[in-house]
Amino acid sequence: MERYDVVIVGGGVIGSAIAYFLAKLGRKALILERERMASQASGAAAGMLGAQIEMGLDTGPLFQLARFSRSLFPELSTELRELSGVDIGLTQKGTLRTVYRDTEVAHFQDMIKRQHEAGEKAEWLTAGELAAREPNLREGAYGAVYIPQDGHVVAPELTKAFALSAVRLGAEIREFVEVSSLMLKDYQVQGVLTSAGPISCNHVILCAGAWSGRLAAQLGFNLGVYPVKGECFSVVSARPLLTSTVFSDDCYIVPKPGLRTIIGATVKPGSFNRQVTLAGIDQLLQSAKQVLPSIVDAEWEKAWAGIRPQTADGLPYLGAHPDWQGLTFATGHYRNGILLSPATGMMIADVVNGVATTGVDIHPFAPNRTVQV
Amino acid sequence: MERYDVVIVGGGVIGSAIAYFLAKLGRKALILERERMASQASGAAAGMLGAQIEMGLDTGPLFQLARFSRSLFPELSTELRELSGVDIGLTQKGTLRTVYRDTEVAHFQDMIKRQHEAGEKAEWLTAGELAAREPNLREGAYGAVYIPQDGHVVAPELTKAFALSAVRLGAEIREFVEVSSLMLKDYQVQGVLTSAGPISCNHVILCAGAWSGRLAAQLGFNLGVYPVKGECFSVVSARPLLTSTVFSDDCYIVPKPGLRTIIGATVKPGSFNRQVTLAGIDQLLQSAKQVLPSIVDAEWEKAWAGIRPQTADGLPYLGAHPDWQGLTFATGHYRNGILLSPATGMMIADVVNGVATTGVDIHPFAPNRTVQV
Amino acid sequence: MERYDVVIVGGGVIGSAIAYFLAKLGRKALILERERMASQASGAAAGMLGAQIEMGLDTGPLFQLARFSRSLFPELSTELRELSGVDIGLTQKGTLRTVYRDTEVAHFQDMIKRQHEAGEKAEWLTAGELAAREPNLREGAYGAVYIPQDGHVVAPELTKAFALSAVRLGAEIREFVEVSSLMLKDYQVQGVLTSAGPISCNHVILCAGAWSGRLAAQLGFNLGVYPVKGECFSVVSARPLLTSTVFSDDCYIVPKPGLRTIIGATVKPGSFNRQVTLAGIDQLLQSAKQVLPSIVDAEWEKAWAGIRPQTADGLPYLGAHPDWQGLTFATGHYRNGILLSPATGMMIADVVNGVATTGVDIHPFAPNRTVQV
Amino acid sequence: MERYDVVIVGGGVIGSAIAYFLAKLGRKALILERERMASQASGAAAGMLGAQIEMGLDTGPLFQLARFSRSLFPELSTELRELSGVDIGLTQKGTLRTVYRDTEVAHFQDMIKRQHEAGEKAEWLTAGELAAREPNLREGAYGAVYIPQDGHVVAPELTKAFALSAVRLGAEIREFVEVSSLMLKDYQVQGVLTSAGPISCNHVILCAGAWSGRLAAQLGFNLGVYPVKGECFSVVSARPLLTSTVFSDDCYIVPKPGLRTIIGATVKPGSFNRQVTLAGIDQLLQSAKQVLPSIVDAEWEKAWAGIRPQTADGLPYLGAHPDWQGLTFATGHYRNGILLSPATGMMIADVVNGVATTGVDIHPFAPNRTVQV
Repeated sequence: MERYDVVIVGGGVIGSAIAYFLAKLGRKALILERERMASQASGAAAGMLGAQIEMGLDTGPLFQLARFSRSLFPELSTELRELSGVDIGLTQKGTLRTVYRDTEVAHFQDMIKRQHEAGEKAEWLTAGELAAREPNLREGAYGAVYIPQDGHVVAPELTKAFALSAVRLGAEIREFVEVSSLMLKDYQVQGVLTSAGPISCNHVILCAGAWSGRLAAQLGFNLGVYPVKGECFSVVSARPLLTSTVFSDDCYIVPKPGLRTIIGATVKPGSFNRQVTLAGIDQLLQSAKQVLPSIVDAEWEKAWAGIRPQTADGLPYLGAHPDWQGLTFATGHYRNGILLSPATGMMIADVVNGVATTGVDIHPFAPNRTVQV
Repeated sequence: MERYDVVIVGGGVIGSAIAYFLAKLGRKALILERERMASQASGAAAGMLGAQIEMGLDTGPLFQLARFSRSLFPELSTELRELSGVDIGLTQKGTLRTVYRDTEVAHFQDMIKRQHEAGEKAEWLTAGELAAREPNLREGAYGAVYIPQDGHVVAPELTKAFALSAVRLGAEIREFVEVSSLMLKDYQVQGVLTSAGPISCNHVILCAGAWSGRLAAQLGFNLGVYPVKGECFSVVSARPLLTSTVFSDDCYIVPKPGLRTIIGATVKPGSFNRQVTLAGIDQLLQSAKQVLPSIVDAEWEKAWAGIRPQTADGLPYLGAHPDWQGLTFATGHYRNGILLSPATGMMIADVVNGVATTGVDIHPFAPNRTVQV
Repeated sequence: MERYDVVIVGGGVIGSAIAYFLAKLGRKALILERERMASQASGAAAGMLGAQIEMGLDTGPLFQLARFSRSLFPELSTELRELSGVDIGLTQKGTLRTVYRDTEVAHFQDMIKRQHEAGEKAEWLTAGELAAREPNLREGAYGAVYIPQDGHVVAPELTKAFALSAVRLGAEIREFVEVSSLMLKDYQVQGVLTSAGPISCNHVILCAGAWSGRLAAQLGFNLGVYPVKGECFSVVSARPLLTSTVFSDDCYIVPKPGLRTIIGATVKPGSFNRQVTLAGIDQLLQSAKQVLPSIVDAEWEKAWAGIRPQTADGLPYLGAHPDWQGLTFATGHYRNGILLSPATGMMIADVVNGVATTGVDIHPFAPNRTVQV
Repeated sequence: MERYDVVIVGGGVIGSAIAYFLAKLGRKALILERERMASQASGAAAGMLGAQIEMGLDTGPLFQLARFSRSLFPELSTELRELSGVDIGLTQKGTLRTVYRDTEVAHFQDMIKRQHEAGEKAEWLTAGELAAREPNLREGAYGAVYIPQDGHVVAPELTKAFALSAVRLGAEIREFVEVSSLMLKDYQVQGVLTSAGPISCNHVILCAGAWSGRLAAQLGFNLGVYPVKGECFSVVSARPLLTSTVFSDDCYIVPKPGLRTIIGATVKPGSFNRQVTLAGIDQLLQSAKQVLPSIVDAEWEKAWAGIRPQTADGLPYLGAHPDWQGLTFATGHYRNGILLSPATGMMIADVVNGVATTGVDIHPFAPNRTVQV
């Protein structure tokens, strides 16, 4: 039987990041992916690094994880480019949360205050400042929150860069291999049974996104990860539409390299169906028009959807199975998988290695935490 | 120098139909296409055979041409399938014009009356009859005009079927060959200059759609064909949405084989730009939702655009150049190119052959007619 | 919990055919497909109906099944076209097995003799007759076996036609739903557990192609279906290359509608990896050139691969589980799934219905047969 | 009538580079492209910067132009990334010319000597050194020429980066606009007639690649640019196949970012037909296997072709029309368009501006040079 040190189940951005950070520690992992790498949510993401904008008033554990993870990108970008030749398209031109309702002004100014208390930058732009910075936005805003440090990357390129860099450092990838069950003995995971035969290993890391629950269930462990479809579309414009990423009530608009703009994303829980509905496009299109009227002149490019793994309390599951030795979880990142991938990769590599190096507390993400919803 | 009997400039549905009917008369034509066959409007069309629905109250020459052309499809479908192996997807399940405004009822009942006078079938469906026939349509219609004989085909397959059948009967096709000018002598066309060198011939037939004007201009002849962009999109549904094609005020909805539905088409004169704008999709989507609310549950497939050749009086140009021997025009079919292709092919083959066989009067379409706009 | 009469696991051509024939018997099935319909082998097949050519000297049970199935296509083609609007592209222009080695002549003449004994048409073409019929083939053949009744269809259209016709008659399809296990009680299947929740039913039909083994394994039943990758590519030519399908030693060449030609297929057992390798293309290209030299002038279209379900003795598994009530198998069709789909659909519908109607003996295909390899 | 300073006819890499360098000088150009930007050779190129490898023993004007142009890329890469957000994928890992025939050793060692005399780096690798550097190459080489400074970029991204940077600095782009003729008066170009109407301007720059001849012909000027088709294909491998670009007798193999490898290119003069033939793939595949046997295990990605503009003496046409004021040529770059684009852009901007800044002599490229073939 084949024997490996670490088997990673799932070839998305999380699995690729873990393989990369394990490889940097000198541990060679095998990634098993049942389809192609990054073929689900990791390839569909808009790539935002919204450490502050996504968290709102929350400055709890997820916020700590997110801002740590965001801080890793600049160096990572250079490192991955050198190892893999792949440019992750890191863009650091800030994110705006527009406010078009007076009843929301107080809420967002409170958010700024909390961000300051947490040591992060955030500023209130007046209507005039907003118009000066983003002249194409619809008039009539009361202002906007400006987060200078929330940027974005090109999501499919990030997974590719992690994976190829990991391979360059000794990791291995097998596509079209499906893990059907765990090999178990005496409360120790022994390996995995796959469509390509059994593979023996010391560690199994489960990071199969919305598909993560089944293997856990085999051990009687209800992981509580459920699928949430997100639909997006993209356009290409003749001139730049925006400088920063813009969040409004109902959509976000991300200016990507090459005059592409991504508009996302719907939130449809409960199904693995990746079809983009006309209703989804309609909803995003109307929302985008509300904020950025001139977007209608841009050229349609394409629409797509991804299935994001959500959890009951909105926190990912990071860490070891409470009882079974050798089984570690890294899933449930919902719509922050791209942002959280470097920190997750680093912390899970630490879990496997038995040494904590990041200073971020992993306990709030324990897979067996008691969830109060 | 290469020598041919007939050179056809333009590899769309019109050129292919002409080559086919010439081949049936034993005359071998060479089609020259500067890109790929059917790469412009012929490949973008929704394929409607709207001989009656497109004409409204008009029972003039275009209507006569259209109904003659429509009558050719059933036999043609079999013939082309045998020669080329290509199924043109002929569907004969009628077309509906829905009427949601009481002020329009009289107009459409008048249309039915005129159609009857012209010897064509058309009937008024009450709201109840309409709902029984098409239960997915929005409630609240005053009724609809039902045209049982207006069907549709799969447009790209029609061009392919004409072209391959023509080849089977001796015609020749060259893609990626651009005609730059005519070779002329003593008021007789001698051939064409192309990007692949000069080609001598007895007849040149100009059927380059919206691009038809330039060669005519070389002879000081202003053909008056201008481009009108039409944008479309398609969806795929889990169950049939419609039985018949539906026209409403602002869009048409065509149920194609395989649970595909095409929604078309915008009308944007004056540009050769084939980009699909977000505005175009928005307009079609809102129009389609108005008529067929459940379309929003269907899956997005794709969007595209075609550049249709329009003329000042809305009639195509069919027939010989008034002065130059050997030059014939067959263009300006606007959004009826698919429908009119069999009749055009037959009549232009007749022009080349010097014998009229169809019984349809070609004179109203003379290229040098005086247009009164 | 949702409740259905029959649940079909797998949305390929086999599952779709079963749903269709069940629907014709008035039984409404639910097809569950973990990706999109026909996304594996059924969408990748070249669509040959090689009832005689594929069987060689064997006139045993598989041959009986195959020729019965082939006989169903002409009527089926019309029936499915009417119900679904989809044309399956049935082409009945015969198949040729070319013989370029004198040592093979006797073998193939023996094959013709056996086919005659079995009541089927087959004839030996001399080198001259072969050249007259297919002038583009390489010279130097000793002759060829000509099978007039082995034709082909367009494989992805066949699945679509079955599925849409089934839906039209009352069946239901859910894509992106994965069956993870069977619900069992007292040796009676109760339903299935899926990624969309549990579904109760009276019958489960397992027809998941190369992926069929896992659910059977849950009952301790080793189904013995293993994956065999087949790579293909297609070209488009300016003129017809062949009239009939041609088999040579190492490849087959199928002339499809629209001047497309498919060249297939490699045989690579043991992996679910759908990647097309350069080695696969090289092998097919060299083989095709050997038989049909002028194919090199054709235009490259695309390459693809499918994972075919093979069994130890080469026969499919058709019929009920020996012990568990309500579980039926229909898988292991290897590279004859398209050909065998109508017979399989009809016979499995009979199994569910408890009445045999086809006259073909299903017992040789029993899932618990003793396989002698 | 619309009025511009400079109109650039052709939206490939040359036109985009010219617009960019004009914009840096404060001159706003309008690029007219009849299809989409970079839709011909510029989008099809493998992106090599083979200043030394492509030139062989020649250290004449083209070599001078090429090495100057190559020297511009590092700074340009940063500049364009900042302006446009687009990464051009500049890779500087050298190029190898493998030598598998002893009769060629002297020739290539002579080439190294000449490169040294010209002040460029080049070194002879022994068989052992070659194997150490590129272990996947076929054994049996006599050695190789190693050119450390010949790298590559991602060709379609380079055009995009030039074009978007130019737009950012004030240039304008119109796609789907075709220039049909020049507007002339008193030996001064007045503007262009286009499919979107007449446009008046002071300067017209003709850089339409293989399509450049027609407008020149209008002035009785035979530009002598002819089309040469080049076919390529790409594969994706699981591990790196090569570090440097490799030239062999019959193909080149370029390792691109993301484990993609491009194999190119055939040389088929005389046609604008962009079809990839099976013969072209066969030729490249056999050549690549000869040099790099393990390439057959890589995954097929896709094939494509571009039409390159060649001239009788192999030099591009750069500079003003001899008689007509305001008309400048920049075409005929054959298979070095990507490499030569920065120098061409800079030098043509200088021609328009009337000030030479580069130190490279433009006269050898004069459009009216006497060509001795």
